[in-house]
Amino acid sequence: MAIFVDMFQKDIYISRRKELMKLLDGEKGIAVFIGNVEAPAQYKDNCYKFRQDSTWLYYFGIDEPRFAATIDLESGEQTIYADDVSIDDIIWMGPQPSVAEQAARVGVEHSAPYGKLDLIVSAALVQGRPVHTIPPSRWYNNMKVQSLGIDRPSEALIKAIIKMRLVKKPEEIAELDNAGILGQKMHTVARKGIRIGRKEQEIVGEMEGVTLSEGWGVSFATILTQHGEVFHNHGHDALIAPGKLMVIDAGAENNSHYASDFTRTYPTGGKFTPRQRDIYQIVYDCNALAYSLTKPGVAYRDVHLAATRLMLERLGDLGLVKGSVDDMMELGIAGLFMPHGLGHNMGLDVHDMEDLGEDLVGYDPDQKRSPLLGLRSLRMARRLVPGNVITDEPGIYFIPDLIELWKKEGTDKGHVNYGALREGYYDFGGIRLEDDVLVTESGARRLGGPRLPASPDEVEAAMAADKA
Amino acid sequence: MAIFVDMFQKDIYISRRKELMKLLDGEKGIAVFIGNVEAPAQYKDNCYKFRQDSTWLYYFGIDEPRFAATIDLESGEQTIYADDVSIDDIIWMGPQPSVAEQAARVGVEHSAPYGKLDLIVSAALVQGRPVHTIPPSRWYNNMKVQSLGIDRPSEALIKAIIKMRLVKKPEEIAELDNAGILGQKMHTVARKGIRIGRKEQEIVGEMEGVTLSEGWGVSFATILTQHGEVFHNHGHDALIAPGKLMVIDAGAENNSHYASDFTRTYPTGGKFTPRQRDIYQIVYDCNALAYSLTKPGVAYRDVHLAATRLMLERLGDLGLVKGSVDDMMELGIAGLFMPHGLGHNMGLDVHDMEDLGEDLVGYDPDQKRSPLLGLRSLRMARRLVPGNVITDEPGIYFIPDLIELWKKEGTDKGHVNYGALREGYYDFGGIRLEDDVLVTESGARRLGGPRLPASPDEVEAAMAADKA
Repeated sequence: MAIFVDMFQKDIYISRRKELMKLLDGEKGIAVFIGNVEAPAQYKDNCYKFRQDSTWLYYFGIDEPRFAATIDLESGEQTIYADDVSIDDIIWMGPQPSVAEQAARVGVEHSAPYGKLDLIVSAALVQGRPVHTIPPSRWYNNMKVQSLGIDRPSEALIKAIIKMRLVKKPEEIAELDNAGILGQKMHTVARKGIRIGRKEQEIVGEMEGVTLSEGWGVSFATILTQHGEVFHNHGHDALIAPGKLMVIDAGAENNSHYASDFTRTYPTGGKFTPRQRDIYQIVYDCNALAYSLTKPGVAYRDVHLAATRLMLERLGDLGLVKGSVDDMMELGIAGLFMPHGLGHNMGLDVHDMEDLGEDLVGYDPDQKRSPLLGLRSLRMARRLVPGNVITDEPGIYFIPDLIELWKKEGTDKGHVNYGALREGYYDFGGIRLEDDVLVTESGARRLGGPRLPASPDEVEAAMAADKA
Repeated sequence: MAIFVDMFQKDIYISRRKELMKLLDGEKGIAVFIGNVEAPAQYKDNCYKFRQDSTWLYYFGIDEPRFAATIDLESGEQTIYADDVSIDDIIWMGPQPSVAEQAARVGVEHSAPYGKLDLIVSAALVQGRPVHTIPPSRWYNNMKVQSLGIDRPSEALIKAIIKMRLVKKPEEIAELDNAGILGQKMHTVARKGIRIGRKEQEIVGEMEGVTLSEGWGVSFATILTQHGEVFHNHGHDALIAPGKLMVIDAGAENNSHYASDFTRTYPTGGKFTPRQRDIYQIVYDCNALAYSLTKPGVAYRDVHLAATRLMLERLGDLGLVKGSVDDMMELGIAGLFMPHGLGHNMGLDVHDMEDLGEDLVGYDPDQKRSPLLGLRSLRMARRLVPGNVITDEPGIYFIPDLIELWKKEGTDKGHVNYGALREGYYDFGGIRLEDDVLVTESGARRLGGPRLPASPDEVEAAMAADKA
């Protein structure tokens, strides 16, 4: 906790809450914030590593379990609810700051026992005052919101939080750069660990150890697989085989709980086959195009469309698709090869604020989600503004089951060269490249330190240097 | 999942369930087993690493989220409840075995959708049939049990499970040795990482990386601290300072989810001061005495008492306590220096089966918990039988707040030399040594590979070799 509160000044929390109240000007009632509690992994006292709620961290900073807070939107009164430790606890835990001290450190004047939150919420409900909350993510918060008698989340509160957290201020950008550097370090350790015959899990441990030595840990479950075409593959039992492509999609969460999220794809033996290099180059070029288009005023939905258009053109050059690119765009043919979106917002959450509502977070009010495969999974479509932090992560995958399904159903209207795919690509796997990008006043900047090797030549050179 | 099921044979699960039913012979109704679900860390789709319920693993083995099972105690019918993945899921997750296949792999004949569990339990309750469950540990399981309308856990089921899980069979002992070896590797990496000026967190990451490379991860939150006297200290911000004692209490969970749990205490500079060595030697001798007394028929409560008696004798030799050792034992003076128990059961849980009830697990029916500090925290008091796996973890701590409290309240009745403690030990910290021990037919065996350096000379020699 100390780190987080030292790093950010009290004034930052005060001004964030002030801005929130300003955005909620005219709303009645109270806003309720429920911090996370410990989550048992085995028995009740053997818990997962504590992870505080991101919205709580953003407005209140205290990185300890079982805290809650209210902001009275009419009087402006702010209160933190938590229990002071007993004398017995002090013997086992050492001296602990009181709740009042912790509240004061983040600029909150009032504090009360945790149980008092129930009374405050009940009183508000009885008086017919609105009680504003966000959708709960964790099992406990779910139970707590229900037991408080709050029947639904507050759209006004959600929208105000999204508005603020979508635009990262300098102190947050510094944290995201820091998390980026740690994520890059993690990826470098992973790349150096790739050797034919090793078990994937060995590398996962090495890279995750880095995140624990310098940060909170991983920002999400590490994807490290020679089957990049299987998106939800979290098993790491396989041995590294020659001639394969290894997709590593992983990120670090730093000690202040900001995330990074990078993907790189490596030829397991250190050299791409010509076929691998062709596809890799397309993904690389799509990533570069997307980056070059990223700037204020541009809708990220249009960046996704530009990248997938380039992808189709280039897959056409390889003879894997055919016909008018405009027609293929209309039909969503790119979705067969890239059935996911180009990117998502990132911040304290890897998919920033995902539980506040994907459309509210990622879509402008006049934007509608497309029903097309791939585009429909785009999490960030908004017109960009300076301070947005997004991922740029195109990929190409050959998913035999999906290709066969399209063939059977004729989804491609004759644009896909199924013969070529079946002959040459059913054992290919997949390729994805991902960077974390900050939208600046004039364009964009990749977060973290020097970029991880990305072009086919850079990747081969780095792997050759690793072996030397 | 594959690993776990490959390693243990189907027959093992069948025979465990058969033994359970035999122990419950004469009971009516159904036994319900609820496996764990994913636990969100951030938003709903960003979860902690999945950890299955230990009792579920013991009887059903399937290491996947959202499974449940029933055993009809009258008809013997066994059913597994889970949902098959959809065609969409298969595209993203690759081909998955069906629930029926997974059930068959662990010898269960019947399977049904997850939602059917609610109907089966409702039907049983309506018919007035008893529904046996264990106390839920995790937030979800809590909600699930409540929503099923089950009002309390079943003592008959709990007792039968404890009876079985307390005695480890050969296939479990092999896993515990495996987890022990991994835990020892983790500790060796940690010891090699101790250097003045390093941040504690760096070592934590290095040692936890080892557990992730070869196992599931840590079996509990790593304790690595230069304030061993503060038991619940999980922060790792401190830099390693000269002249301190570093307590490392940490263990690994292997890929089959068996735990290890070791503690070692190191002089940060590689050499004990004379005062540190004196106290260390006492802890070492208590650990050795406890090990030598560990054998079938002996109550582990008596082993705790023998170890703490030796501790008091030796603290008397140092002039820190005085008077009749019998009187001091009666008064529980040892609790001032070792306010915890000598050890606990270990298996699939680090504190094995803790949520089934500490007294039911750790105490024979004729044993009562002592109210004395230290002894009252003893988790394992039972008369030992071959197959018990326990920890042997004496410690000596100098906790200024606790010493001052005893002094103020006169708890020691004149046996404690407060002047000597205040003069020489308020900045000492603490020392603990812990091994994992299997009770054999003839005595005991320490689990894992070759023992981690333990005696003062062994520790100093190992640290000198690390530096060389």
